[in-house]
Amino acid sequence: MTRIDYFTEENSIEIVNGRMGKETAPRLQEVMASLVKHLHGFVKDVELTQEEWEAAIEFLTHTGQICDDKRQEFILLSDTLGVSMLVDAIQHRRPPGATENTVFGPFHVDGAPVLEMGANISLDGKGETCLYEGRVLDLDGNPVEGVRIDVWSDNSEGFYDVQQPGEQPTWNNRGVFITGSDGRYWFTGIKPVPYPIPDDGPVGQMLTLLGRHPWRPAHMHFMLNHSRYERIVTHTFVSEDPYLTSDAVFGVKDSLIIDYLPCSEEGVMWKASFDFLIVEKATKRDTERTNT
Amino acid sequence: MTRIDYFTEENSIEIVNGRMGKETAPRLQEVMASLVKHLHGFVKDVELTQEEWEAAIEFLTHTGQICDDKRQEFILLSDTLGVSMLVDAIQHRRPPGATENTVFGPFHVDGAPVLEMGANISLDGKGETCLYEGRVLDLDGNPVEGVRIDVWSDNSEGFYDVQQPGEQPTWNNRGVFITGSDGRYWFTGIKPVPYPIPDDGPVGQMLTLLGRHPWRPAHMHFMLNHSRYERIVTHTFVSEDPYLTSDAVFGVKDSLIIDYLPCSEEGVMWKASFDFLIVEKATKRDTERTNT
Repeated sequence: MTRIDYFTEENSIEIVNGRMGKETAPRLQEVMASLVKHLHGFVKDVELTQEEWEAAIEFLTHTGQICDDKRQEFILLSDTLGVSMLVDAIQHRRPPGATENTVFGPFHVDGAPVLEMGANISLDGKGETCLYEGRVLDLDGNPVEGVRIDVWSDNSEGFYDVQQPGEQPTWNNRGVFITGSDGRYWFTGIKPVPYPIPDDGPVGQMLTLLGRHPWRPAHMHFMLNHSRYERIVTHTFVSEDPYLTSDAVFGVKDSLIIDYLPCSEEGVMWKASFDFLIVEKATKRDTERTNT
Repeated sequence: MTRIDYFTEENSIEIVNGRMGKETAPRLQEVMASLVKHLHGFVKDVELTQEEWEAAIEFLTHTGQICDDKRQEFILLSDTLGVSMLVDAIQHRRPPGATENTVFGPFHVDGAPVLEMGANISLDGKGETCLYEGRVLDLDGNPVEGVRIDVWSDNSEGFYDVQQPGEQPTWNNRGVFITGSDGRYWFTGIKPVPYPIPDDGPVGQMLTLLGRHPWRPAHMHFMLNHSRYERIVTHTFVSEDPYLTSDAVFGVKDSLIIDYLPCSEEGVMWKASFDFLIVEKATKRDTERTNT
């Protein structure tokens, strides 16, 4: 008679993973085996109690049920546990010097108007005006033409236009700019302000229990697209922001913090300069090949 | 100037856990630190892609949203990943010889009628009749009086009464029996049949992708309560069941499998004998003290 191994505390990982069928897609097998290993490892390490397990089930259920077409609490949970930034970091390992990515965030909208360089994207007339300017360069320092730069930020009260439909002008603090042969970009917006992530749901309760606040430091969003270069999704951060070291979603990177300097142009208070260094798709593939 | 460490792929666990406030409850700190360690460990081990992360967010959201007052898909997810059994195993480490626990399951109902020993709990007249009998003993082999034994099973079509209100008689295949001074119990029910867990939701989709079936082997539920003894929540399983080695929720333990033998009593087809060995609350505490 063959000895049969039933589930025990000791063999739990092997038993659950051993149940996967041979026809299971190899990548799914790899992902699930690691998930079960770490999930059981967590339960064993802390000797999770029945009551804690019930609280976890309730938390996850509530997190799912508060989601709707406007709210995604599981993404918020991923963000606040650092998982979103970790996945982004793993996906976007770049050569030294290249502009780093950060979280995409939930507030991008497709279809913002393509504007002339120099245009003002702040349509509500609120906030401290700021000139954003810089260049898009390749890793050899050559300007890149034809890069499509999507920009978006909150208004001076900490809300994106899509959070206040009817209250803010459509496309307030949004625009698309396309670089010319000099690789330069420049436009006027506002100096952004910090804002809290939605904290009236389960994730907010979690942050409170962990002694954490829900604030994100002020930032301007940028997305750079070009057929020959890797997409960049990033922010630039305001250097004196009080939440830089405690961003609720861990989005800050040293290389993305910039000084907002007083601006000499008439009617503009601040100037924020930032050069983007972008990576050719082929170049990146070469880098990966070298690394493996 | 103090050097500030921002989030990176390398330091992600330390950065996220370092964010917890000093006032955080010590047990919550312990649980969250381990959760973040294992969650990030999983993402790093498999280098989870953006697309896989999106699929995970969608899966978790769907799992939460299909829950209602009748359906708990997150418990089902926990069951099918072996987490429920693992938590149960950690909570109910018992001395050798003591009856083992298994999952409680979603079909227990409080308030079932207290019946005379020998009563028939199968009220729909369907299925193969079976005499359940045995003793409740302490670890020294002495009979235990006054043990409240809750029993429940599916009917011959694989459904519990609460799954078919109006179709099955109320309290069909349920009852409560209280042991006398001899510690004996006996009642008539049916030989239970295998049934599938609900597989029309995200968990069912997951099982399909993993090449797993949703079936549970046939089992009779028992819950034993007595003020001086540790509660036992368990099943007994039918020895020739085809799903014993592939229970969708990993509930089977060797010591809980019993042979259903032909019964010589008139009108009863099978006999299922099982003695419960229960642990005094004080005894269990002593054991734990010895182990630590």
